[in-house]
Amino acid sequence: METFATPALVIDLAVVERNLARMAGYVKQHGLSLRPHTKTHKSLFMARRQLEHGGATGLTVAKAGEAEVMAQASPELYLAYPALDRPRLRKLADLARRGVNLRVGLDSAFAADAFAEAARAAGVTFGVLVDLDVGYHRTGVPTPHAALELARHVASRRGLRLDGLMLYPGHLMHAQDLDKELAAVQALAAETLALWKQSGLEARVVSGGSTPTAFVTHKLPAVTEIRPGTYIYNDMNTVDGKLCGLDDCAARVAVTVISNAVAGKVVLDGGSKTFTSDRNACRADAGFGHVVEYPEAKIVRLSEEHAEVDIAGCARAPQLGERLHVIPNHICPCVNLQEQVWLKRGPDDLVPLEIEARARLS
Amino acid sequence: METFATPALVIDLAVVERNLARMAGYVKQHGLSLRPHTKTHKSLFMARRQLEHGGATGLTVAKAGEAEVMAQASPELYLAYPALDRPRLRKLADLARRGVNLRVGLDSAFAADAFAEAARAAGVTFGVLVDLDVGYHRTGVPTPHAALELARHVASRRGLRLDGLMLYPGHLMHAQDLDKELAAVQALAAETLALWKQSGLEARVVSGGSTPTAFVTHKLPAVTEIRPGTYIYNDMNTVDGKLCGLDDCAARVAVTVISNAVAGKVVLDGGSKTFTSDRNACRADAGFGHVVEYPEAKIVRLSEEHAEVDIAGCARAPQLGERLHVIPNHICPCVNLQEQVWLKRGPDDLVPLEIEARARLS
Repeated sequence: METFATPALVIDLAVVERNLARMAGYVKQHGLSLRPHTKTHKSLFMARRQLEHGGATGLTVAKAGEAEVMAQASPELYLAYPALDRPRLRKLADLARRGVNLRVGLDSAFAADAFAEAARAAGVTFGVLVDLDVGYHRTGVPTPHAALELARHVASRRGLRLDGLMLYPGHLMHAQDLDKELAAVQALAAETLALWKQSGLEARVVSGGSTPTAFVTHKLPAVTEIRPGTYIYNDMNTVDGKLCGLDDCAARVAVTVISNAVAGKVVLDGGSKTFTSDRNACRADAGFGHVVEYPEAKIVRLSEEHAEVDIAGCARAPQLGERLHVIPNHICPCVNLQEQVWLKRGPDDLVPLEIEARARLS
Repeated sequence: METFATPALVIDLAVVERNLARMAGYVKQHGLSLRPHTKTHKSLFMARRQLEHGGATGLTVAKAGEAEVMAQASPELYLAYPALDRPRLRKLADLARRGVNLRVGLDSAFAADAFAEAARAAGVTFGVLVDLDVGYHRTGVPTPHAALELARHVASRRGLRLDGLMLYPGHLMHAQDLDKELAAVQALAAETLALWKQSGLEARVVSGGSTPTAFVTHKLPAVTEIRPGTYIYNDMNTVDGKLCGLDDCAARVAVTVISNAVAGKVVLDGGSKTFTSDRNACRADAGFGHVVEYPEAKIVRLSEEHAEVDIAGCARAPQLGERLHVIPNHICPCVNLQEQVWLKRGPDDLVPLEIEARARLS
């Protein structure tokens, strides 16, 4: 089948639908809200499918540019990110003025003041979740008391509305004792909420969990909302993280074998500009993606446009011109490299799908 | 200065001009042809500046989609890549039919036949360079005799014109004894050319060298043409490879400090979707790019939109909202993530520059 040039990302809609139904079922079962992170697909079509599956109260975005695109799919947006420069704050305030209920996550009085100033200048209100560090140590205030202090600051600022708390338990992906780590996260959240309550502050929303912890959210009773992204497509990180199987990977890069001149290897026509250089987050010795048709093959080195594949373990050598499929280690930045992907709606039914929010840097 | 949102790539035109002049001067001094690889900048403006500096006989591209864009800047294109699927071959043949003198590099009779078939179907001719592996072991036929065999095959195929030989001495970037390694590359090329000559075959072009070896090409007398890419902007790989200084890095990502809530670090608003996850090719312990204003800082972890910076070594801590500049490890895939960059023509003279050939996967 050579109806399209390679490399190209092919998305299997049937697998997408199954992945979306599973997550929607989970949140409905446990009375959680779902606010899917659109950074994974960056597509309005996919955002709308997420909303149509139910359980979703809005969408999550990482960037102001993504918010501008995703506002076409939902008026309820959560920017899980403290954008601080004035051009971006103006852009976000413009969205709020056009009717988007925009909520932002932040971890400093400085950021709160910047958002408040932009909100007041535009005559709008931003909802705010206070970002509490529960162990990933990337962003987030370090203690429940610091979260209280920032919550008070937010509540005192005209232009802001304190909506609740945000957690990012990214460290749980590699937890030795998951239940113990979950209990520690729950304790931090519960302590914070108790402090807020004593001070007359309410957290209507406690937003937690990305894909790796989505399905254990019922063990974090403080959490009211999750914002997973990767679950829609999955990738080798979620496969090797034991979160799904290869059959649950909806997005595969179609590639062509373009060289077999060097002994013991073949070269595929995708490299770091197709797959990204992201290593496998769970298996340090894994290659740069999984070759579906040759599971024993290992992508050992990437150039920008070449993937060198060690085929020593393969019973049969891939042939020149052969079309193969690679499941990337990390699907989110891979999708971001595409201007257009192929949506597979059936065995011979491929339609182009634009990635509207691709490459939105700011 | 907050005239534009961050993160954003800013290109200093004065540094670009200096870098281009240096390379043009080198090739003129040594009687070499220059065919700049446009994969680095993916910009028609930059391609035209490369041609205007002189010494350039055409442009190099990696993908058919890049060829389509760069044909607007030059009718002399070298596709250093064996595109093998029919949709791409048709696209390339279309370009040739529209007057582009398209030369391709390939390393198999299979690829030669595919190009020949596409050329004949379109009534055009493709020039061909036979790709000889001189030590990087990615693509390329393994020996001078194999290169002779493939050259004969190419010469016998209607639709193809044997133009010469292609080398990619990528392994020299890490050579222990560069002169010895250069001599080995020269010996392989010379042996190949001698074999061709004995068989009545001519190599009008011997294309070698990317940026790391560009300025030692005079030690490879067989080489007639070089195709460096990175030299136009440079990056931490060329700095740490001792090929240039920090002042020669024309492309820097402007970022904003968005969080300092976690002790000992700050967070910048660019991550793997801005810088890529590419590690430093010369210093394994280097971070994900160089923070210009805080040279002691180290970018220790990237998420998609966050750069976590260890500031333990900094005399002064970067402040929330502060605008900084990062020189990426590898500028080529970084540029590919941008739809538009800022061209700095003077201290207060910034204009948007479109990256026309960004994200051309195939």
